[in-house]
Amino acid sequence: MNLESEPVSASWSIDPDSREAVYQQIAARLAREIAEGQRAPGERLPAIRTLAAELGVHRDTIALAYERLAHAGWVEGRVGAGTFVRPSEATRESLGSASPLRGSGIRGRVGHATDESAASLEAGVTAEIRLSPQVERLLALADTRPRYATGDDVVALHRLVPDPRFYPLEAFRTCLDEAIREEGPELFSYALPEGDPRLRCAMTDRFRKLGIDRSADELVLCHGASQGISLALRLFSRPGDRIAVEVPTYANVLSALTGLGLEAAPVRMDEHGADPADLDRVLERADVKAFYTIPSFHNPLGTTMPLDRRRQILEIAGRHGVPIIEDGFELDLRFRGEELPPLAALDESGGVVLLFSFSKSLFPGVRVGSISARGRSLEGLVALKHATDLSDARPLQAALARFVESGAYDRHLSRIRAMLGERHEAMARALPGSMPDGTVWTRPEGGYQLWLELPHEVDTRDLLADAARAGVIFSPGSLFMPDGRPSRAMRLTVACADPGEIRRGVEALGEVVDASRAAGPGIGRVAGSHL
Amino acid sequence: MNLESEPVSASWSIDPDSREAVYQQIAARLAREIAEGQRAPGERLPAIRTLAAELGVHRDTIALAYERLAHAGWVEGRVGAGTFVRPSEATRESLGSASPLRGSGIRGRVGHATDESAASLEAGVTAEIRLSPQVERLLALADTRPRYATGDDVVALHRLVPDPRFYPLEAFRTCLDEAIREEGPELFSYALPEGDPRLRCAMTDRFRKLGIDRSADELVLCHGASQGISLALRLFSRPGDRIAVEVPTYANVLSALTGLGLEAAPVRMDEHGADPADLDRVLERADVKAFYTIPSFHNPLGTTMPLDRRRQILEIAGRHGVPIIEDGFELDLRFRGEELPPLAALDESGGVVLLFSFSKSLFPGVRVGSISARGRSLEGLVALKHATDLSDARPLQAALARFVESGAYDRHLSRIRAMLGERHEAMARALPGSMPDGTVWTRPEGGYQLWLELPHEVDTRDLLADAARAGVIFSPGSLFMPDGRPSRAMRLTVACADPGEIRRGVEALGEVVDASRAAGPGIGRVAGSHL
Repeated sequence: MNLESEPVSASWSIDPDSREAVYQQIAARLAREIAEGQRAPGERLPAIRTLAAELGVHRDTIALAYERLAHAGWVEGRVGAGTFVRPSEATRESLGSASPLRGSGIRGRVGHATDESAASLEAGVTAEIRLSPQVERLLALADTRPRYATGDDVVALHRLVPDPRFYPLEAFRTCLDEAIREEGPELFSYALPEGDPRLRCAMTDRFRKLGIDRSADELVLCHGASQGISLALRLFSRPGDRIAVEVPTYANVLSALTGLGLEAAPVRMDEHGADPADLDRVLERADVKAFYTIPSFHNPLGTTMPLDRRRQILEIAGRHGVPIIEDGFELDLRFRGEELPPLAALDESGGVVLLFSFSKSLFPGVRVGSISARGRSLEGLVALKHATDLSDARPLQAALARFVESGAYDRHLSRIRAMLGERHEAMARALPGSMPDGTVWTRPEGGYQLWLELPHEVDTRDLLADAARAGVIFSPGSLFMPDGRPSRAMRLTVACADPGEIRRGVEALGEVVDASRAAGPGIGRVAGSHL
Repeated sequence: MNLESEPVSASWSIDPDSREAVYQQIAARLAREIAEGQRAPGERLPAIRTLAAELGVHRDTIALAYERLAHAGWVEGRVGAGTFVRPSEATRESLGSASPLRGSGIRGRVGHATDESAASLEAGVTAEIRLSPQVERLLALADTRPRYATGDDVVALHRLVPDPRFYPLEAFRTCLDEAIREEGPELFSYALPEGDPRLRCAMTDRFRKLGIDRSADELVLCHGASQGISLALRLFSRPGDRIAVEVPTYANVLSALTGLGLEAAPVRMDEHGADPADLDRVLERADVKAFYTIPSFHNPLGTTMPLDRRRQILEIAGRHGVPIIEDGFELDLRFRGEELPPLAALDESGGVVLLFSFSKSLFPGVRVGSISARGRSLEGLVALKHATDLSDARPLQAALARFVESGAYDRHLSRIRAMLGERHEAMARALPGSMPDGTVWTRPEGGYQLWLELPHEVDTRDLLADAARAGVIFSPGSLFMPDGRPSRAMRLTVACADPGEIRRGVEALGEVVDASRAAGPGIGRVAGSHL
């Protein structure tokens, strides 16, 4: 049988509901055919494009299946020629759950010998170890995520990591040194689950300026806003429940939901944030246990929810008795316009937990975020944090306390905000000349990210490889869709590109976009506008 | 109605399966009686001992209910006289889920005014925020845990935290400084989810000496073994599943199970570890998804599983296809006898994930632990770690890498092991003279903890207060029981007490134990021996 000449889609069954990812099913099927001699050594596998079309799956899925087969030694890629069945079976590895002779069980690798797989294909079977269904789904989700090319000459308009060129390392190191000298060994013992008291006080003082009038006892430090998301989700929900999320939303919250066995309940957005009527409708459902939202400097949109919309959202959530998980991960990064109170500052019911992070305003490596909460929510968070990992690293928290107290953090913020204003300005100047008529994009008042929607039907995932070759990377819009649907949008960031790099990147991107328009109509099923 | 003269147990219904903890139900009932005028201002509440006996609950439960009522302003304690209904309602707070007028919903506190509760009792109800059932259960579990008295003159034989007097702070600070200077800003960006490569290499090299022949890629760094436990549990199970655990077992693994909505499936132990026949029986159940075990320097027993038992356990788990979560949190702390290979070193199926930690061998504040895993388990762990908190703090990992590479860690271990031998020797010398005939205890070959069983029927929880007054604290055996049952055992540690303190503490403990024997027979339902 030769897939090049004979379509396989009729005889292959791809089960989209299987515990195995689609690419795993495909890899397993091909490995079985090779093992059973249906595919001879040296035989070429079908072209990625061909097999994708036959099976009705994305080309990335086929590419991933081939990659797995190559990694396991079953096939090898030859540049420009295709993918070929390898001559010898001696170097083949089991494909784990995709191993043809082992059903769908998970199997670890035995020893280091490269001939292990031949053995494993024949060896007696010990019982299979199974991963939890939510971890299997998480792995399948991870497989759909783009893997970005990297390189020094590539403009990284996809990164949402503060520019290392701006890290105030020397000042922080001094604070760290001071903390260790002053606090001594106790600093290296277990911290309270809620974290270093001095840092919580310093943060509370800053929050007060944003209208968040809570005590230091109502602040739980955690491992970045990302851990805060996991803890807050667990606080209100259990597997099988739904969490209302904006469409689009932060990609990693979708991973967190998947890993916790939760489902996203999508809420439409307009340029002011979550659509009130749609939120009202979604929160009707009894299995929706919380609403995750990013009111300021939305990720990926870059938009900010005005005050009246904030009050509306609070009223709706309050009426339904649904708590709000407010992600304030860039709360300190406003570079123009006036500060708006977070939902947590407007809320009087105790139904809002607010996440905050130093990862974007200072650097991620300090691993400090926080959750503001009240009453039983607060008690629950402290208990969860303790049950999850006891406590965080106090040495870094104590150093950060000194860094904030000394005013160094506010001085750093001034620099960062000025840099943000400058880079967003460069972006706003570069886009009109490079993007086709009808392209729209957001003008953020804070944070690193903005959202751009192309006027023509195209799945921006399909532009990634060309863009990387042209020297620029972006995040395709589908990454931020709860259902992963194609999108003609992309998220751009100014985090790791200076004005010159932004200009260069946007110009390269414009050429790739132009080429895609010239190539004809897109796939005809891309998501509508979010702006 | 006066509870002092009239038993209440007939009219009160305590629902042990309620979402509310028993103490909350009691507090809610009393608050309602006060609110409805059944208990007049100035009236004395029943004595803790009396009400506990009437309701058939532990005295701690009643004490906790009274504490909550006092905290909320409903009652006040007067030293030596009892607990009394407070004169005014103006200072009363809602009891949260125990609030009599709010059903069982959770409510945050509004504002800071002390008269809020009178208002909240009457105000229009906004919808209630509910915590997830597993968080409610976690809070109820936390309420059953002893809260230890502290004080400089108290010998802390309950602490399982390495002695701060031994922390090699200066050497570590040098490594931290060096890491920051050498690696610069990139060190403060996001790490790989699996952590600092250099540290993983250094750890892999050390593991190899224990027979664990895995590559650095098969090691995922995490936030102490505690986070490792949470991740490993989530890797294999989902809420509603069961995890086989030894009886007794590490108290915080019971919290982790509760917080994740998992149930413990108890496995009997003898002095060599988990009982093979009982493990075989427990793993029969389809809903048991993993076996959590501490083969070396068991917590709380202090015992070590011999080689043949290790092979038996592996065979049984392998036959059932149940993965093993091996907790090696004190793996580096053997102070006598010969090293034994961890289960992970003996396993050929990939069905063992091994947790390791620097928290006990160095200090907890570095927050570095690891999970060794293979194949799909490894992939799943990396994805889970990323979805949970992206990554850990690389600056501390990079410093630790240098600390290990330089030999400083091994030199530190020599000191710690000598200290452990000396302190356990002091313990072994002190116990015979202070404890009643028939008392048995373990003689660990590594780690900080040992287990002691009294010869008479007593719930060691009942000795805690007297012991603290006598100047010593221990951990009551019930803390380590999956069902929290009373136990006549206790866990003692040598972590934070030097030989002189150990002698003093054991002597004080002996007197408290003697007094409890003189006081007559115990409650008649304490757990049997685990030795």
